Formats: sequence, structure tokens, C-alpha cells
Amino acid sequence: MSTFGSLFRVTTYGESHCASVGAIIDGCPPGLELSPQDIQVQLSRRRPGQSNLTTPRDEKDLVHVQSGIEQGVTLGTPIGILVKNEDQRPKDYSETDLYPRPSHADYTYLEKYGVKASSGGGRSSARETIGRVAAGAIAEKYLKQVFGIEIVAFVSSVGKIHLPSNVAPVAVDGDEDSDDVADALTPEFRELLATITREEVDKHPTRCPHLETAERMTKRIIRAKDSMDSIGGTVTCVIRNVPSGLGEPVFDKFEAKLAQAMMSIPATKAFEVGSGFKGTEVPGSKHNDAFVVKDGKLGTTTNWSGGIQGGITNGEDIYFRIGFKSPATISQAQHTAQYDGTPGTLAARGRHDPCVVPRAVPIVETMAAIVVMDQLLIQNARKAAAGLLPPITTLPPTMVMPSH
Amino acid sequence: MSTFGSLFRVTTYGESHCASVGAIIDGCPPGLELSPQDIQVQLSRRRPGQSNLTTPRDEKDLVHVQSGIEQGVTLGTPIGILVKNEDQRPKDYSETDLYPRPSHADYTYLEKYGVKASSGGGRSSARETIGRVAAGAIAEKYLKQVFGIEIVAFVSSVGKIHLPSNVAPVAVDGDEDSDDVADALTPEFRELLATITREEVDKHPTRCPHLETAERMTKRIIRAKDSMDSIGGTVTCVIRNVPSGLGEPVFDKFEAKLAQAMMSIPATKAFEVGSGFKGTEVPGSKHNDAFVVKDGKLGTTTNWSGGIQGGITNGEDIYFRIGFKSPATISQAQHTAQYDGTPGTLAARGRHDPCVVPRAVPIVETMAAIVVMDQLLIQNARKAAAGLLPPITTLPPTMVMPSH
Amino acid sequence: MSTFGSLFRVTTYGESHCASVGAIIDGCPPGLELSPQDIQVQLSRRRPGQSNLTTPRDEKDLVHVQSGIEQGVTLGTPIGILVKNEDQRPKDYSETDLYPRPSHADYTYLEKYGVKASSGGGRSSARETIGRVAAGAIAEKYLKQVFGIEIVAFVSSVGKIHLPSNVAPVAVDGDEDSDDVADALTPEFRELLATITREEVDKHPTRCPHLETAERMTKRIIRAKDSMDSIGGTVTCVIRNVPSGLGEPVFDKFEAKLAQAMMSIPATKAFEVGSGFKGTEVPGSKHNDAFVVKDGKLGTTTNWSGGIQGGITNGEDIYFRIGFKSPATISQAQHTAQYDGTPGTLAARGRHDPCVVPRAVPIVETMAAIVVMDQLLIQNARKAAAGLLPPITTLPPTMVMPSH
Amino acid sequence: MSTFGSLFRVTTYGESHCASVGAIIDGCPPGLELSPQDIQVQLSRRRPGQSNLTTPRDEKDLVHVQSGIEQGVTLGTPIGILVKNEDQRPKDYSETDLYPRPSHADYTYLEKYGVKASSGGGRSSARETIGRVAAGAIAEKYLKQVFGIEIVAFVSSVGKIHLPSNVAPVAVDGDEDSDDVADALTPEFRELLATITREEVDKHPTRCPHLETAERMTKRIIRAKDSMDSIGGTVTCVIRNVPSGLGEPVFDKFEAKLAQAMMSIPATKAFEVGSGFKGTEVPGSKHNDAFVVKDGKLGTTTNWSGGIQGGITNGEDIYFRIGFKSPATISQAQHTAQYDGTPGTLAARGRHDPCVVPRAVPIVETMAAIVVMDQLLIQNARKAAAGLLPPITTLPPTMVMPSH
Repeated sequence: MSTFGSLFRVTTYGESHCASVGAIIDGCPPGLELSPQDIQVQLSRRRPGQSNLTTPRDEKDLVHVQSGIEQGVTLGTPIGILVKNEDQRPKDYSETDLYPRPSHADYTYLEKYGVKASSGGGRSSARETIGRVAAGAIAEKYLKQVFGIEIVAFVSSVGKIHLPSNVAPVAVDGDEDSDDVADALTPEFRELLATITREEVDKHPTRCPHLETAERMTKRIIRAKDSMDSIGGTVTCVIRNVPSGLGEPVFDKFEAKLAQAMMSIPATKAFEVGSGFKGTEVPGSKHNDAFVVKDGKLGTTTNWSGGIQGGITNGEDIYFRIGFKSPATISQAQHTAQYDGTPGTLAARGRHDPCVVPRAVPIVETMAAIVVMDQLLIQNARKAAAGLLPPITTLPPTMVMPSH
Repeated sequence: MSTFGSLFRVTTYGESHCASVGAIIDGCPPGLELSPQDIQVQLSRRRPGQSNLTTPRDEKDLVHVQSGIEQGVTLGTPIGILVKNEDQRPKDYSETDLYPRPSHADYTYLEKYGVKASSGGGRSSARETIGRVAAGAIAEKYLKQVFGIEIVAFVSSVGKIHLPSNVAPVAVDGDEDSDDVADALTPEFRELLATITREEVDKHPTRCPHLETAERMTKRIIRAKDSMDSIGGTVTCVIRNVPSGLGEPVFDKFEAKLAQAMMSIPATKAFEVGSGFKGTEVPGSKHNDAFVVKDGKLGTTTNWSGGIQGGITNGEDIYFRIGFKSPATISQAQHTAQYDGTPGTLAARGRHDPCVVPRAVPIVETMAAIVVMDQLLIQNARKAAAGLLPPITTLPPTMVMPSH
Repeated sequence: MSTFGSLFRVTTYGESHCASVGAIIDGCPPGLELSPQDIQVQLSRRRPGQSNLTTPRDEKDLVHVQSGIEQGVTLGTPIGILVKNEDQRPKDYSETDLYPRPSHADYTYLEKYGVKASSGGGRSSARETIGRVAAGAIAEKYLKQVFGIEIVAFVSSVGKIHLPSNVAPVAVDGDEDSDDVADALTPEFRELLATITREEVDKHPTRCPHLETAERMTKRIIRAKDSMDSIGGTVTCVIRNVPSGLGEPVFDKFEAKLAQAMMSIPATKAFEVGSGFKGTEVPGSKHNDAFVVKDGKLGTTTNWSGGIQGGITNGEDIYFRIGFKSPATISQAQHTAQYDGTPGTLAARGRHDPCVVPRAVPIVETMAAIVVMDQLLIQNARKAAAGLLPPITTLPPTMVMPSH
Repeated sequence: MSTFGSLFRVTTYGESHCASVGAIIDGCPPGLELSPQDIQVQLSRRRPGQSNLTTPRDEKDLVHVQSGIEQGVTLGTPIGILVKNEDQRPKDYSETDLYPRPSHADYTYLEKYGVKASSGGGRSSARETIGRVAAGAIAEKYLKQVFGIEIVAFVSSVGKIHLPSNVAPVAVDGDEDSDDVADALTPEFRELLATITREEVDKHPTRCPHLETAERMTKRIIRAKDSMDSIGGTVTCVIRNVPSGLGEPVFDKFEAKLAQAMMSIPATKAFEVGSGFKGTEVPGSKHNDAFVVKDGKLGTTTNWSGGIQGGITNGEDIYFRIGFKSPATISQAQHTAQYDGTPGTLAARGRHDPCVVPRAVPIVETMAAIVVMDQLLIQNARKAAAGLLPPITTLPPTMVMPSH
């Protein structure tokens, strides 16, 4: 349904052509300095109309905070926010009166609800993500301030244009019959994960931090736009400085909730964490991350695990990649069928993104922030409770965490 | 935590060296004929010791039903089940007293809980999955009987040994600068999805349905075993005959819950549905699934979507792929560090699977069944409620589902 | 937290002096004709300023629907609603800068959150209930239209002024050493439960349907008002025409969720269902509700159970009673202490209800509607699932529900 | 359904005539010393056969811990427990093959599930409570050890035999037309709440701590037993030393979750906290609890609130009262109807409690412990998160909690 999270919890409403879209964010720690601008910054990164690569639908997407904050400080009570739908042009969608758009949600929404919004796919609109982004922006503010947690996403591919293999998240190769593998995690890639910033990402409209690749991506998107077509891509995200111990086995493991969060974003078809699919080709002896002391506590020499082991964070960088399909709504004519089965040709009008991945970047970041925040609060509860117990003296020392 | 599902809900307990592992399955429809054997069949497919490709740990894994069933019929009340831990050899794990196993959960469990089970990784043991498998076996019984839903998983790769591209789930290729793509969904692959059965899958110990590939996988696994190493792989799963309309936007979309379910299985690192990562390279004009009438209702000519659009099932086959990393526990010596940071060499004894994917097959199937069952019940509730309302007469016919 | 319900789910935000209060209602059946006026009617019954018995704070409390409804029909997606806070006078509360109001939530909110709203008790304001009332009004529309369910609450006592014993919900008496009991459920009382309407309840500003008692209640409230004091009371509520089978043992029994719902309303201190506390004095032989055929199915001759047995509705009228304490905010001087412990005297200004029970009537009704709606959807899911199974033939007929 | 709690979470299974009853307790803090005996002590207080006042069904009710504890210390992972059903005599219930027992759950279970257990009311059996009691006993261990929290329940009435008014939880009286009220909270009653122990409660088989009243209660129960009848009663419970700040507005207020917990216990019909129903008759000026400094922090001079204000604990004793109806199963002949509507006479055999309140005492205590534990963990999470933020300097000091 439309609620996510247990202690840090967001509930959203709204489709593209109603009065507003919004969210209620429950469980924000009290006493956090928070201004509308803290929320706006990610909404503005998400909104359309930022470059010639995205939909020309121009909306200011100004956030209106309704509750939960007084004089710039959170009260700990639910934060209501809303963003008005100002630039509505429902007429644009009139073709969809007869045709369910192929690979869009028009048909399935009707199958599910028996009735559909005039805009067609109802809540499958990217506009639905505004509430999530607002919630995640609040989580980010806390995580950054208290733990120095940094969440940075960037575009790692558009169509067949990928980051070069030395900075790609996964690039294992080698002879099928040997165990030789190229190092999927090159020093360059680990350096990228360790240092990339949102400012660098935003330097190019594609949000790809490798400029030469970014230029090729731009051409690819323009080509899709010019041919009234669309193209997909992938977003890679890193979360730095997450404390160890987050994630709730067995069903709410860190990567499981992260996967749910990411796969709930419109147009996502794939998710991988750490070495991902390619890592399955690497034998354990090469894939295991050996332990080593770093800054006085255990860390790992490599990080194929992507910062998560056994569903629990280990303190290393968490990185993951999400696949976004090519947008279903294209202006090119498509042979398909009407709701009643009559074959025919549909050419959608309206304003559409030829490629969603640049705008998906802040959505991925903020959904990641919500997951981290929620898991952090749950682990906080456990640690605070356990910390009040006397030291365990009846177990062998090897079963108990050394004080550190 | 250890509960999954909202209306069909499983809660599990147990680690590898305690008295038993088990589960409480709440929300099973009453009046279902159900015998322990219905549950046992998947537990037996999951258990170790089935071939020389898996761990020699030999456990009967007999299910003991505690409640919720009388005279072979479900009562609708919680079904308690347990499987005793009979073949415990805690001593095997003594090396782990000093060393956290690299890429295993020993370290993170200790970071999370401050105390760890003598077996090391606690609930990260594959033995934890018994409760899920039992729950899913119950769901499968219902889904098969009432809807003819068939869930079949199979091994699609081991290390670099993949199914041949004509029957692989994703194999897009072609010139980077053109929109030409090989058809990722060959007729052969769609035929495989449409017809594959568990009996065929089980014919080979690898659970790969393509025998020539299966033989190469066997060699790869034996090689890992012989070198005291391990190897990963992927499992592909198809769900047939799922009604349209399942999935709860926006956070509990069908693929989002499926992703959470799959990524909660031990050793998983990646998930993709439908055309997945490769599909992101295909332009919308080729990726969109055109509608066509099939058996009197709308279906699609292709199925890049994997049976899900806008987070809701559309009635086509649902297929997805999961990546399992190489098992972390290997007998080969590994240079790493002890809990206290002292560098050293660890060589794990104990019995370990060199490759988990063959045994993962029933786990994937049963977790999928739990997701389908839960979403089905939720959609049932909505449909039943909406079905009691009078027909909508005030909306334009294009906004309302035609009677069918 | 601020979310209630599993399939029909309301999440609320807002305190008394922020921009607005509102709610997101998720899970409303699609295809329901619903206008803002359907929601407004209960909001207007709840709002202050309706008579000289309530706070003069005059707010229009106009509902603004944001989403989930198009052309007067629900889409099945979340319905966002908000009501603006127009008549704010934060200055009135300045005394509370130094003093936590006795028996109000000022102190506990500060203990909980470490920071408090300028209005003091934050979400403990009665204004918080607007979101619930809107949600419940939507549920009521559905329940009334489809099942003919009627939910009517009324004031059954103000201070020591109670409904006369022949129409009181509980009035058991008699000799302590005998089992003789006056019938707590007089024909008059059952008749009242069976026939009372909101129109009748609203005829008198006290919302007590027994006019002579209502007049005495009025005097009691005026006396409290004139003496700058306050007074409590009870509300009795009946739910008619609820299908049998609702309620989810063991923790979500019908009365358990009803109790949670009612005890979450501000100022509530007590809840009882059916014969309640007084019924505990009646021996089983007199308290048991014998079965009898009514309208072709089983009903009961008496209804001490209040329509619920074993946590599940039995089709009889559900009735329950809630105790509301005297409002904590009074203008009379009170000897108490400041936040820092300094003893002193507090005389609250501001506009306060001398008695909340008349305005509590629609809040009780709507919370009841939310509980019924949620439980109905869950039971719908089960029934729909079980109804698709073949008839049970292997059990003795006495274990299976006869077709009816 | 059969799960309660969010961070400290219990899920139960089992009815009276299946193999076992049990529970999974998830979220227990790791590092707690816990033995089966810690759990057994409350199970033994709950079990039947303790005196001639309870059912002769004699069961040892020995707890078998399955997981989550090693060498006497909790691991933080789910604790599985079960208790075997040893003394089953299903034949005793054969009358119920034709007759639904009046006011029992036979009929409603059949209406809900369409099939029923041979024992009739399925999970409405008191035997279901074993899982809760085990879970609560674990919570109690933690709460007692870390916070010194004491939870003591006792029988406050049986039939019309009540504790004398000076030690009764509620006994307000006086002239209807004046505001004079006897003090409902006498010094004697507050002293009882402050000092009562389980040892004192257990001195008498009725578990009423006032011996003269206890003797009269005994006679009342014996009379019910001798006349093949049953009788109800009330249990009062106090929770001491609960930290301030627990409870999650607005739907999970402390008293709301407490009410749900208590009203989910079989046979409960009423719940009140603090001054309860009688308190509604007391004007605010007398009912408000004035603040005063106690032990260096704010406390209240009186405690009509029952330790909860605005849904949040204030640090004072929490006390509440629950009404249990007379058991529905009696051996006396009852005129009623069969499932098929045929009128007739039912005389239940089997072993039944003539009065459940003495055995309900540990059930009330342990359910209270579960609520406190869950709310404590949630508030811990918030406090830990807020505590890491810098001090709030931008708000007026009156809006911020003074350091203490």
C-alpha cells in the first residue's frame, strides 16, 4: 500500500492530475533543525524541466509544510507536506481513453481497481514520487548531521552506453573455464564510490560523473527524443558512513528492504547490491572480503559484499545499482489493441521523458535514506535496550562483543 | 524482523544448532486439504545430502505439524510447524571462535547483537529457510488447487556457465550506436517459461533444465569442491497463471515485495524481473509489450515486462532471476583477521555447500508462493468489497472496467 | 504512531496551531460514489461552536479533498484530505509557557519528545481527531450503502447524570448473596439500540436522546462552565447490521481493535462492550445468550455479549460504552508546579469545552466505522479465498458450516 | 491476527487439542540472562489445577525453549517456545457437535472460518494464552532487571463481591447535584498499589489480597461450582516504575495498546485505566492531578490519570482494571438451539473453570509486560536518535525540556 517504514514511516497520496501530491512523515526524531528548503533541494533535483533531456512539463514543485515543525525545529510529531499540481493538462491524455498504453499501467490499474484515473496509470505516475523524495530529504538531513552519512547516486548507463569498466560497478570477465577474474572493484571504482559528491554528479545534465561518457549518453537521449522513442538506463548509488549493525534478519535484512524500496520506484526492473549478478561468477576464495583493522576497528580489504553481510551492514560503503526500463510512453505510433480488444495504432501525445535516469537520481537517494533511517531507529532501540543490561559474564569471551 | 506478509503471514525461528527450527503460518484459508506430506515435499527438495554437489550434512528434516490442521483440513487458525535439528556438530565451528569468517555473518551478527550463537552467524544459516519453505509449500498447495498457479524455478547459471542465449532470461546485444537488439525473449525461452516443470528440473542434480549446460555446471561445482572453494550462480523462476490485478502500489508493488522476499534469502545479491538489467538497453519502441486479445481478454504479444506493469500483475507469466554469491564458508586457507584484529589464516572445517543454487530452487519457489498468496488475499479483499457496490454509471465508460 | 488499520488504513497529521490538519485514507474500495459533503457532514457534527455547550472556537472545518476521487467516484488509491487551521490564537496559551497544565499532555509530550509545540500538548489536541473523522465518514458511506450498517452514538451520562436505568447500557443490581439480577438489557434499552438514529440524537445539543435527562445534562454542563470547571461523561454507541464473522483472533479480536480505537480518542479512560463491568456480576447461566433462529439464521435471544463472541461478531447489535474524563483545561485557578518545579497557581485562558461528550459522538462513530471497515476487508479476503475451494467432504458434517 | 507488538513481538499458535501450543518471541534484547524457569514461573501461575477453584484439567505446562537462547543468554534472535498438550480429552466435547455453546465462540468460529476445530471454539480456548504468558514473562525479566518495573495484578471482584471501597480502584460517590465526591483514590488504595507483591497476591487461591474479601469470593466461586454455574469478576493491575515518555500518539497511545492487549484476553468485556468510568463523574477541578516535585523531578499529588496523560506515561503508577465475564461453558442445562436451528437443551460436560479471574492474573500481568516492553523499545529508538542531535538553541527555553 502507500506506507513504508516501521519507525520512520512515510505515507503518500496523489496522482498526476489531482489537487496536490503529498506525504505524512511519521517518526522523525524531535529536535532536528529542519527548513522547507532542506526538503526543497531534493524536490528541485527531481522536478521536470531542468534540461532539454527531460519532460518540458514545468512545475515549480514547491513544498508546503503543514505540521510537525515549529520555528524550524521538528516536534517529533507527523510532518505533513504537500506539493500542488499546478501544470495539469488532462486533455493531453485523451488517446488513452480507448487504448491502454503498452507497458504502462493503464491496463493493470483498471484490472486492479475496476476504475481508472483520467490520467490513465493513476499512481504509477512519476509524480507520485514527490512524497517519497520529501520524506527521504528529511531523513538525509538527520543522517548527515548526526552520522555524517552521505548518499550519492549517479547515472551509470543509458541504453548501451556504460561507464568505462574501470569505474563501473560490475565488470567481471575472463575465461569461462578458469577462476581468473578481472577485479570488478578496481581502485578507480572504489575511489569513485568513496569520493563522489552530488555537486559533481549535477555538473552534467545526465548526472553521469564521467564526462566523456556523459556526452555520449546525452547524444543517446537526444536520439531517443528525436525519434519519438525512449531509452532506459541504470543508476548506481553509494551510501557512506553507515554504522555497522543495521538490518533486521531474516525478512527485513538491509538489502531486502533496500530492494523493496528501490523496486517500488516507477520503471525499475532490476536491483543488485555489491558485486551483484557478476559477482556470482567469482569463486568464494576471490569474492570473500578479508578482514583487516581500519581506524581501530575491523573493516575489509575488498568490498564485494557492498557493505552488507548476512543482511546486516558492516560499516563499509554500501553500493547498489538499479535498472530503469525505457519509459513506456512514447510518441511514436505503436500497433496494439484498445481496451475492448480492437487492434489499432496508438501515438501518445503529452510530455514525456525520453529517459528517466537523470531524474531518478534523487529518488534513489531519498528512498535509500528512508531505509537507512528506519533501520537505524530499530537498531537504536535494540542497542539502547541491550546497553542497559549488565555485562555478560557467563558466556565464553568469544561469544561476546569486545568492548570498543 | 522474522515476520513476512500481511494477510498470509509467516514468522520463523531457529538457527542451526538449537533444538529445532520452525514457523507459524497465519492466515491460511480455512477448508484447504493439507497433509504434512504437502509440506514435506519442498522441505525434502531443500534439504542437504541429496547429491554429491551439496553438503554431506544429512538431515531428514521431517516436518512436525503442531496446530491449525485437523483431520487433514486447515482450520484457518495459525499452523505451527517445526523441524528438529538432529545432526548437530557444534565442534566443527571452533575456528570461528577467534575468526569472523570473511563475507559471512559472524562479524555483523556480533556487531548487531553484541553476542553471537556458538555456530557463528546465527540466523544467517541456510537452516533458517526451513520455516519459509514450509510456509510457501502451504501457499503453493492453495494456489495450485484454486488458480492452477504453477511456480517453477531452475538454475540458470553456475559461475560463468550460463544457459545458452536462446533460452536465457536476458541476452540483449547488438551495436552500441544502433537500436538493433537481439530478441531477449526468444520463442525458445518463452516456451521454456511456459512449459518447464519441477519434474524436469529435478532430473539433474544441478537443477538446470538444459542437460548439456547442466553437465558443465556439475564439473564447475566439482572443481570448486575439489579446490576447497565455492562458486555462485543464478536461479530463474517463472510463475504461471497468476490473475491480473495483484500488487499494492506504491510501496508494496508486486515486484517490490518479490524483491524483498528474494533478497531476504541468504547469499542473494541481485534480483531482476522481466527484461531486467539488459532490458534497460532496449528502446521503448521495441521494449513495449503490445496488447492483443488472448482467450477473450487482453494479453501481450511480447513479455519484456515479466507479467508486471505499474507494480501490478497483468496475467502474463511472471519471471525473474536471482543472483546467489559464492558461499562464504570455504575450507581453503584465507588470510584475514581475528575479532581482535590480529592478522592470521583461517581454514574453516565443517560441511559446506560448494554451490547453493541447486538447493536454492525450492526456497525461491516457496518465497514466491508466499508473495503471490499474500497479494492475492489483499486483492481479494478489495475485489470483494468493490464487487458489492452498484455499477458505476456516472463516469465515462472509458474510465470503468468493461464487464468481462 | 499515527497510522491505524491494515487494509483500510488512516494516517493523520497536524496539531492545533499549524497550517492544517489532515489525513491519508488508504484502501478505500474503488468505485464508491463519494463527495466532499459525505465527509463534511461528520466533520461539521464534530466541530466546535455548535452550541453554547461547546468551545466558542469557531472554525468552519471545511474539508479539502486532494486525491483519490475523480468525478465523484473513488479510484481505490489513497484519498488525501486536509482542513485548514483558520482560527489560531496561539497567544492564549502563554501561561503554559511556564506551567504544564495538570492532567493535560504538556508535561508528557515534553518528556517524550524533549521539545513541545507552542500550543502545549501537541497532538493531544482534539483538533487531531479531524483526520480520523474524515476517514471514518468515508468508511461509513461504504458500510451503509453496501451492508446497511448503521452506527449511532449518543451521550449516556454527563457527570452523575445518567440515562434512566431502563434505557441505560448497564444497570445490573440485586442482592449480593443471590444470583438474582435485574435485567441489564431491558426491552426498552434493546429497543433504543435497535432504533436510535443520528437525527434523534442531534435533536438536543447534549446529544442525549432522552430529553428529560438531556435537560439535566445541559444544566450540569452550564454549571461546570459557569464555575470555570469541566465535567466528564460517557458515550454509548451501537453498530447495527454488521455481518457475522468479523474480528481477527487472537490479538486483533473485534473488541480488542475497537478498544484500541476508542482508547486512542483524547480524554478516554474506560471502555466496555456488551454487558461490560456490570455483566461480570451476572452468573453464566443468566449471562449466556441462548441461540434461536431469526430470519432464517441463528441469532440470540438476549445480547449480553454485545454482538461479539470469542472476538468475532455474531450478527447481533454491537454496543459499547466509552468514558471520557472531565477536560483537563479549566479556567479555574489550580495550585500546581511549573516545569522547573516552582509551586504556583495556574489559571488557563483560552477557549475550552466544559464537557467533550457531545462533540465526541461523531468521533466515536467514525472510529467504529474504521474498525468495522478494516475487519470487513480482512474477512472478505478470507471468505473469498475459502469460497474458491471445493466443499469439504472429509470432515464430519458437524465441523463444517452448513450452506446457508 | 496472531501477532502482537512492533519491536517486541509475539506470535502464537495452538488450540486446546492439537499437539502443542507455542509462540515465537521476536525482538528480545540480546544479552539478557534467561532460563526456562524464568518463563515457567508465570506459566505455572496460569496453569489449571492449582486449587479447587479452577478446572481439574491437570497439565504440567512445561515450557520447551527451542531457539534464541544459548548457555542461558538471549541472542537477540527469535525465541521459539512450546508447551505440549498432554491431557487431551476431545471426547468430552461431543455435545458441541450439535450445539454451539451459548456465548462461547463455537458459532462465531464456524461463521468466520466455515470449519471448526473438534474442540469447538478453536483459538478461543484459554489454552491459547500460554504463548502470550511466555512472551510476557520474558519481557518482565528484562523490565524488572533494568528498570525495576514491577507488574502486579490481583482479583478485585468476583460477582458482586468487591474489594472494600477504601481499597477499590474506583468508588466515587456523593450527591448527584453537587460536585462533592468521595476520594476515589484513598490513601489506602494508593498504598495498596504502591506495595502489593505477587507473593501477597498468591497467598490466597482467589488471588484477592484482602483476605476477608477473598474468603467471601471463595464461597461465591464454590457456590457457582456447586450449582454447575459460573461467575465473572474483575482484575486490577498496577505497573510501577515505568519511565515517563512511553506511548505512541495518536493511535498507539499507551492506554490504547494496553486496552487492545487486555481486550484480546479471552472473556474480557471491559477495561478502564486510572479513575475509569467513575472518574467521568468528577469535575476537572477535582480530577486534575496537580504537579509537585518528587525525587527531583515532577510528579503528581494525586493520580486519577493512572500514570498516563495524553497517551504517554508520566512516571506515576499505572493502574487499570479489566472485567471478565462469567465463563460461558457451564454444566447446567441450557435451553438453546442446535447449529441447524433445532431448539433443545445443552448440558456441557468437560472440565471448566467456574471463575477465570484467579488464573487471569498472570495473563494480565504478562500482557501488560509485552505492552510496556514494546513501547519502551520504540521510545528508546526515539530518545537515542534525538540524543545525538545538538542541543536546541533556536527555540524559547519553555519549548525545550530542561536538562535533568
